[in-house]
Parts: sequence; structure tokens; C-alpha cells
Amino acid sequence: MTQIKGIGVSNGIAIASAYRLVEPDLSFEKVEVADHVAEKNRFNEAILLAKGELELIRERAIEKFGEDKAAIFSAHLLVLQDPELKTAIEAKIDEGINAEAALEEVSTMFVTMFESMENEYMRERAADIRDVSHRLLSKLLNRDLPDLTTINEDVIIIAEDLTPSMTAQLNKEFVKGFVTNIGGRTSHSAILARTLEIPAVVGTKNATESGTTNEMIILDGSKGIVIFSPSTTEIEQYEREKKEFEAEQQALKAYVDEVSQDADGHHVELAGNIGRPDDLEIVLANGGDGVGLFRTEFLYMDRSDFPTEEEQFQSYKTVLEKMGDKPTVVRTLDIGGDKELPYLKLPHEMNPFLGYRAIRLCLDDRDLFRVQLRALLRASVFGNLKIMFPMIATLDEFREAKNFLLEVKEQLISEGVDVSNSIEIGMMVEIPSAAVIADLFAKEADFMSIGTNDLIQYTFAADRMNEKVSYLYQPYHPAILRLVKNVIDAGHANGKWVGMCGEMAGDPIAIPLLLALGLDEFSMSASSILHARKQISTLSKAQLSSHIDHILTLSTAQEVEAFVKQITQ
Amino acid sequence: MTQIKGIGVSNGIAIASAYRLVEPDLSFEKVEVADHVAEKNRFNEAILLAKGELELIRERAIEKFGEDKAAIFSAHLLVLQDPELKTAIEAKIDEGINAEAALEEVSTMFVTMFESMENEYMRERAADIRDVSHRLLSKLLNRDLPDLTTINEDVIIIAEDLTPSMTAQLNKEFVKGFVTNIGGRTSHSAILARTLEIPAVVGTKNATESGTTNEMIILDGSKGIVIFSPSTTEIEQYEREKKEFEAEQQALKAYVDEVSQDADGHHVELAGNIGRPDDLEIVLANGGDGVGLFRTEFLYMDRSDFPTEEEQFQSYKTVLEKMGDKPTVVRTLDIGGDKELPYLKLPHEMNPFLGYRAIRLCLDDRDLFRVQLRALLRASVFGNLKIMFPMIATLDEFREAKNFLLEVKEQLISEGVDVSNSIEIGMMVEIPSAAVIADLFAKEADFMSIGTNDLIQYTFAADRMNEKVSYLYQPYHPAILRLVKNVIDAGHANGKWVGMCGEMAGDPIAIPLLLALGLDEFSMSASSILHARKQISTLSKAQLSSHIDHILTLSTAQEVEAFVKQITQ
Repeated sequence: MTQIKGIGVSNGIAIASAYRLVEPDLSFEKVEVADHVAEKNRFNEAILLAKGELELIRERAIEKFGEDKAAIFSAHLLVLQDPELKTAIEAKIDEGINAEAALEEVSTMFVTMFESMENEYMRERAADIRDVSHRLLSKLLNRDLPDLTTINEDVIIIAEDLTPSMTAQLNKEFVKGFVTNIGGRTSHSAILARTLEIPAVVGTKNATESGTTNEMIILDGSKGIVIFSPSTTEIEQYEREKKEFEAEQQALKAYVDEVSQDADGHHVELAGNIGRPDDLEIVLANGGDGVGLFRTEFLYMDRSDFPTEEEQFQSYKTVLEKMGDKPTVVRTLDIGGDKELPYLKLPHEMNPFLGYRAIRLCLDDRDLFRVQLRALLRASVFGNLKIMFPMIATLDEFREAKNFLLEVKEQLISEGVDVSNSIEIGMMVEIPSAAVIADLFAKEADFMSIGTNDLIQYTFAADRMNEKVSYLYQPYHPAILRLVKNVIDAGHANGKWVGMCGEMAGDPIAIPLLLALGLDEFSMSASSILHARKQISTLSKAQLSSHIDHILTLSTAQEVEAFVKQITQ
Repeated sequence: MTQIKGIGVSNGIAIASAYRLVEPDLSFEKVEVADHVAEKNRFNEAILLAKGELELIRERAIEKFGEDKAAIFSAHLLVLQDPELKTAIEAKIDEGINAEAALEEVSTMFVTMFESMENEYMRERAADIRDVSHRLLSKLLNRDLPDLTTINEDVIIIAEDLTPSMTAQLNKEFVKGFVTNIGGRTSHSAILARTLEIPAVVGTKNATESGTTNEMIILDGSKGIVIFSPSTTEIEQYEREKKEFEAEQQALKAYVDEVSQDADGHHVELAGNIGRPDDLEIVLANGGDGVGLFRTEFLYMDRSDFPTEEEQFQSYKTVLEKMGDKPTVVRTLDIGGDKELPYLKLPHEMNPFLGYRAIRLCLDDRDLFRVQLRALLRASVFGNLKIMFPMIATLDEFREAKNFLLEVKEQLISEGVDVSNSIEIGMMVEIPSAAVIADLFAKEADFMSIGTNDLIQYTFAADRMNEKVSYLYQPYHPAILRLVKNVIDAGHANGKWVGMCGEMAGDPIAIPLLLALGLDEFSMSASSILHARKQISTLSKAQLSSHIDHILTLSTAQEVEAFVKQITQ
């Protein structure tokens, strides 16, 4: 038996045979080819074959995982048919080299270019190009890529890495988990594993060297452990742990229809964050009391032009109808910074997190903003809509955004369009200035939702994606708790509700603190809702509140954490 | 008469003949050269000639402006002798082209590379390479560059741009001002104009098209106006304004030896920010009560390796001795982020302002930090030293830094070295978290100095260098004033003094607010000290303080500004 460690990115335990993902040998020689026309024909045939394959995979993916998850293949089809790429490769062939070499040289150039770019979106494009040119090369060499949809028995996949197109082919019925050599908590495959709810361990460096196909392995996605050829004792032990984990997951299901309240009957709202309409199902399956954050960027991604008002209207309507009376808080477009769109030219920025994004951009580009607001307002009659603006720093910005929204509403009404009269207009509190003057905002906003991911970054002036300073991402730090308290107190003093939609809202250490501070709404990833509901049912807000004064005098995040553990154990 | 507008970057008025800076024609043809050896010899001769010229200019610059200002030429000499550049150019010559073309191709490549880099330091290297290759080209073509040191009558220079090497040759005795087509407030030439105290207007776009040599012109560096061939009336009017400006400057001189106090005799300290030991002279000439911020990065810049403990010790000793009993607050190394060193490899960062820099880096690289602390502690016996740590976000960081300093001090004492026993150990408050928990810091730090440039950026999550969001740089905003008040109150409650060393401290609108809030020390650019002293002498802290409660309930920066103007008019 061999045991290796990696990064556990999706909880749970799997015990199954290894399926070693073997890539075909796609090596080739660079040679001179005199007949350019024939070579270009060969290249164009490869494009057609790859296109057919991608369309097929896309259809299967839509069937199995829904339209959203299949979007990656639409993106690949776009890359495949990108005239710039095609022209560059054909030009290389015209210089007299074979299609394989031309493809590799051009795609390497584009990948390098996109990878050196600052923003995540462009770096994802690099992954798309790599993936597509890999497929094209396999067609040129007539050596097919492994087809993961053919797996028909329980396996744990072991691979160097899973490309986005591979992960989109995973069938949860048979694929019980996966292990990769590279990757981290936020890599594409890690996110997908959590969505599929299958355990996964990434970043093991050399799992592929240890595993052979059909060897039995144990995967502990919580601890990041992989055991090859385990002993019978080990298998028994992990079978027990697996059962316990599953029983716990099962037990949580009992909370699906429970009311979200503490031990004394104090009510709170436990909502889900969603990125796409499809995510709603998991929120509802986990008994979410509402949607506390609907990110609307998805509508603008993976396409070649802005979504129309009608397209947006349909998406918002779908979500609002599905949610019925339950509140749905929609955040207006938070694009810019590191989230760019291929069809929206933005200036290059030295510090995108401190840059031109979200409400700053929307207030500057009223046409863009108007389309979204019109779509939202038109959809408002189909459910319980609340709208919030992201990245509000000053009262001027909030007033401008709110006035513009009211202006757009007037216009719609004058056009004879039905608009709900009970839409709450609120804001994200994710910039320190907003937290500091929350009392001024609470007079004018209908609600405030604290975006802790950004608030923590800015309060400590530390990019949490930057591993050299990520130690400064300290949600329990007294500075954060004081700012959160300031916002909640300001909201309540003005009769407004206060929510939170950062990761902190679903964190078991933070929950007692937030309950004590009087937070009204906790919005988190859907998979955390039941755990939070169970935890809160055992706590007493009244009792916890008595400790707040003391907690706010503690000096460090560690002291706070230790104290919370002590009073809640 | 023609009048054009630009950006006034250095106050004052100049009236003199235009000196149109004409660059020699450095155009050439790219040709094939068979004799590579002869061509390389020609290139090496040009290097020698350029080297001789640079050494001469450097010596003259040291004589006239001191060692610091001449450092640019040392940097140029380094570039000139950079083996990488030389090898690349010779390789091009070996490919069979003339030296001029080889030089241009290689230098363009390096310039493009450095200019595309994120950080200012590297972009400055691009300017150096451009400057040096320009000089090399002039030597290859045997067409000399204009020598500004030959100017011997009053002129106003009109140029496309002034290269750093040109500005370093300006003789204030004859050069009464300058106008350029390009540039901005923070460009090299603008900074130099302010240091030399000569009026300057940059960014006029087409001044060189309007001006001819010997034409009379008027330059208003405060308003950014340039008038070509003015009428007699205009000359008379500007002569009057010039006299008024000079009289005002003269009148301010009366405050050099005055005590810094308000109309009721409430004392404050008006100190200067310095970047290099040479800057001390302007602080002393302007009657500074001390140095409130000594940036120590200069010691690490424009060199190929870390400065030794001895080098640093000598610099600190010089400053402390010159300041005598007056306090000198030294900020430990704030490198990283956008300030890189060629000899210190740092990871590429997506958001350098939220990255690995200052105390974060120093606590991680104790060897680097130890050298600076040893040098500072050894120098402490030569004056009134106070040490502060930059970018402190959490109490843990402050404690770690302070403990390390005390450890280094113990070590020095055990080595028998004299160390002062009255060094105050403080911190910068420039990260929102530090301002929020200032009460906790005030118990452990001897003083706090508010760094508003960064504090404002982080509080509004807006990079002030980014013109798309620079409107969010709002020093008078209630959120900033509340944080500043929190720091000052926390300091005073614990018997500690509180200073400020951002641009805000010298701002005439901010000064009444800061005085009202009880700020103890105002540290600013030396040229603002006398104006601040005069202004404060007319204000009453007691009276202004009575408005603070009201001011903190105002909603926007504009409201605050209007209110300050109203109560101080």
C-alpha cells in the first residue's frame, strides 16, 4: 500500500478501482510539405472532424448536466471556428511546414499570449485554446482522445490533469471521485467536483506514477489522502468513515424543510448564492429560504456580444418564477477588474481589484446598465425581486445608481410595461468606506448585504488570491467583526435588514459570531445551508450576544477563534 | 499672440525668450554590412564616446545638483555597459546589418519589454534604455545632442519632452521655466521642476509647433498657461502677478523661524517628508520641525545589489546628525508591490498594491530586514530617531516587527555597540484594518503616523493612479475623517502622539479638519510647510473642534469641503 497527500477539494470518501487516464501519444515531427493546398485541406478536414466531435459531446453534456455546464463546449466551438487562429495556421502551412507543426506553433503563441494576461477570463481562454488544439492535433494524427463517457463501472480517475472538456464528460453514476497531479482549490476541476458532489484530491504531484488501472484505491476528499492498494483493515475503516459521512449528509437532509431559527426561536434567513439559473435546483434541494446573491455575470460570459434585454429578461423571469415568494437578491453586473468580456474593451489596469469595475463601470456606461435594469424591472412582476448594486464606495454612487434605476422604471411605466411596486433597492457593503459610513447608507438603502470576500481583501489590503499574502485573509479578525457590527447596527437603527453573501456567512466558526451580531440573512453556497441550519438550531443568539463586547476587545483572529470554540463547545 | 494650455506642474511665473530645443536628425537607413568586425568596432567606439560624455555630464551634475540628482547618470552608465544589451546588438551586427539598425532593433525590443511591465521601476528602466540608445545613436551618426549646460542667458525651454538626462543638465540660473508637449504631474521633468522651484507647464500637445527660438513667452506654471509673443499689456500684467507670487513666497519666509501653533497657542509639529538625505536641506530651509517620513527605499534603488549595513548606517547617521534634536521618523523598507529591485526576485502579482510588500516582505526576509535595523539602531545615537513600520495590518505583524527590532538591538548591545535607549517604535496607519483597531495598536506602539495616500486608496478600493477611478480619491470624505478621528482618539486615549505623512497633511482644506481632530504632527513636502504654518497661525483648534460632530454626519466629500470653506473664510 502506498499513501500520498494532495489538496482535498471536495469532501467525501470513495473506494473503487483506479482508472488511469492514458493520453494518446500525440508527438509528431516538423517536416516540410510542398503541397500547401493538400495540407490545408487536411487541416480543414481535421477542423470538421473536431467540430463534429465537439457538437456530439456538447449535446451529451446538455442532456446530462444541463445547458450551463455544457457552455464550455460552445466556447470551444467558437475557438475552433475563430478565423484569426485559422488564418494564422494556414499562413504557416503556406510557409511550407506540416499542419501539425503549424497548429502547434500558432496555438503555443496564442496560449502564451493569453496566459501572460492579467485577468482570469483571458487565462481561461488560454485553457480553451490548449484544449481545442489538443483535439485538433488528435484528429490530424488520427489518434482519438479518451472518451470518458464510455466508462460503465465504478472508478476513481487518476490523471495528470482534467481538462475542462474532460470534466464535462464525467458521469457521476460511475465516476466516484478523481485524483490529479496538478490543480488547486479553485481550479476548474475542483469546482466541478464540488458541484457534482464527488470527492476529489488535486495537486498530488505524482499520483499518475503510483496508480495503475484496476488497482483498488481509497480517496479521502476531506483530508486530501489517496491510498493505493489498501489493506483489508484500511478498506473496512474507510467503509465505516464513508458510511458515517453519508449518514451525516443524510441526517442533514432532515433540515431541508425546517425553519431557520436558533434554539430560542430567533429567526434568520438562510439563502443560497447562485451564478446561473441552473444553480437554483441545488438551493431548493437544500431548503434555501431564498437567493441572497444572484451573480448576473454569467449572462455576459462565453459569448461574442452583449446579451439583449429580452435574453436577460427570460433568465431573470425563470429564476424569479422558480423562487416564487422566496426573496431573490440580484446583484447588478460586476464586470471589469479581473472579469473581462471579449467584446467590451477595457483599459489595462495595474491593480484590477482596485479598478474600473462593477457599479463604477455601469454608472459610466449607462446604455449597458440600462439594458440590465430594464430586463430586471420587467421580470420583477414574476417573483420577489430585490436589486443590489456592487462595489458601492460613496453615497454619491448609490444615489446615482438608485436614481437611474427609478428613471428606467418611470420610462418602462410610460411605455405601458408592468413593473412591481415592491422591489427593494439595496447595496453590497464590500468596500471599507461603505462599512464605515453604513449609518448614512442605511437611511437611503432598503437593505445592505455584506460581501465579505472583497471587504476582507480591502480591509487588510491583501489580495486573497495572492498566496504570499493570503494569510491576511482573516474573517474572524476584530477589525472585520467591528465593521460587520457597524453595518448591522446601522441597518437595524434604521429598520433595515442586513445580510451577508461572502464565504464567511457559511463558515461554522463565523456563524455564532454573526448570529450574535444580529445578522438577518446568511447567504452561502447551497451545499452549506443545511449544515448552517442545523448549527444555528443548537445556538442561542441571546446567550452569544452577551459575549460580543468582550469579543470586540480581543486582539487577533486567533484569539477570537479560540474564544468562539470555547463558548460553543 | 498665441495662448496654449497645458498642465501646470510647478507654480510660479516666468517671462523670457523661448529656447526651442532642436534635436539633431538621427535618421538612418538600415543597410547590409559585410565587415562585421569593423562594424562592431565602430559600435564599440560609440560606446566609449558615449561613456566619456556621460561621465562628464555626471561630474557636472554632481557639482551642481549633488550626488543624488546625478544618480540618473550612474544608472545610464550601467545600462551602457550592460553585457546583455551589448551582446544582443553585436549578434545583430553579426547577422549582417549596420550598427545603427542593430542598436535600434535591440533597444526597441528592450524598451517595449520594460514598458509593458507592471511596475514603475521597470518602466523607468525603459526610459533609461531609450535615453542611452539615443545617445549611442548620436555618437554612431556623429551628430551631437544639444548641450543644455551651454545656455548662458535667461530662457524658457520648449521641447517635445525633456529626457531625464536633459533635465539633470538644467541650470536654474538661466533656465527660468520649461514647456513640453507631453508629460503629466508625476513625470520625471515635473518632479524636477518642483525641486528646482522653476515654473513648468507640460502636456501642451503642440507647444513646439507654436514656439520659435528667441520669441518672447510667458509661462504661468500655476494655471498651466503659455503665451507666445505676448502684448506689452500682457507682459505688464504678468510682471505684476510674478511680483505678487514672489512677494507671497517671500512673505512665507517670515514663517521659517516661527513656532508652529494655532491662533490660541496650541502647538503642532510641521515636519517634512524626505526621500533622500539631500532633501533635508529644503526641509531645514523651510523651517521644518522635523522629518515626519524618511522613505528609505532610495538606498536600495539604482544599484545592482543590496546596500551594506555600513552604507545604510552612514546615510542614517548623516540625516540624524543634520537634524540634531529635531525628530526624524524613519520608515523601514517599503519595497515590493510596484516598487521592485533588479536584484530581488519577487513573484509577479496581479494586484501589486494588495500584495507582498513592505513589512510583509521584511518579516518574511529577516536577513534583509536585519541589515536595515542594525544600521538604524547603530545610527540612533547620533540624533532623535523614531522608527516606524509600513503596511501594518494586524497586531501580530506589529508585535513580530517590534520583537525582531528588540532582538536585533539586544544582539548589538551584546556586541558592545552603542544604541540609544529612547528610540520610539511606531507604525504607519495606512491599511483600513489598522485604523479600525487603532485602540489596540495604541497600547503597544509609541506613535502612529497616518499614511493617507494608501489609506484613502484602500478605504475606497480605488487605485489613485488609475484615472478611471481616481475620482474616488477623496481625502475629505466622511469615511476617511472618521477613520482619522478613530486613530487620533485612540492615540490620545493611550497618551501617544499621532501624525500624518500623506499628501493630505499639507492640503489647505484638510488642515483645518486635521487640526480640529487633534492631529499632533503634520508631515508634508517641504515646500508646503511655510504655507501650512501661516494657515494654522490664523486658525483656532478649539473653535474648529466644536464643528467636528456636525462634520462627521455630512454625507459626501463635497459637503465637507463646502462646510470647511464656510467656517474658515
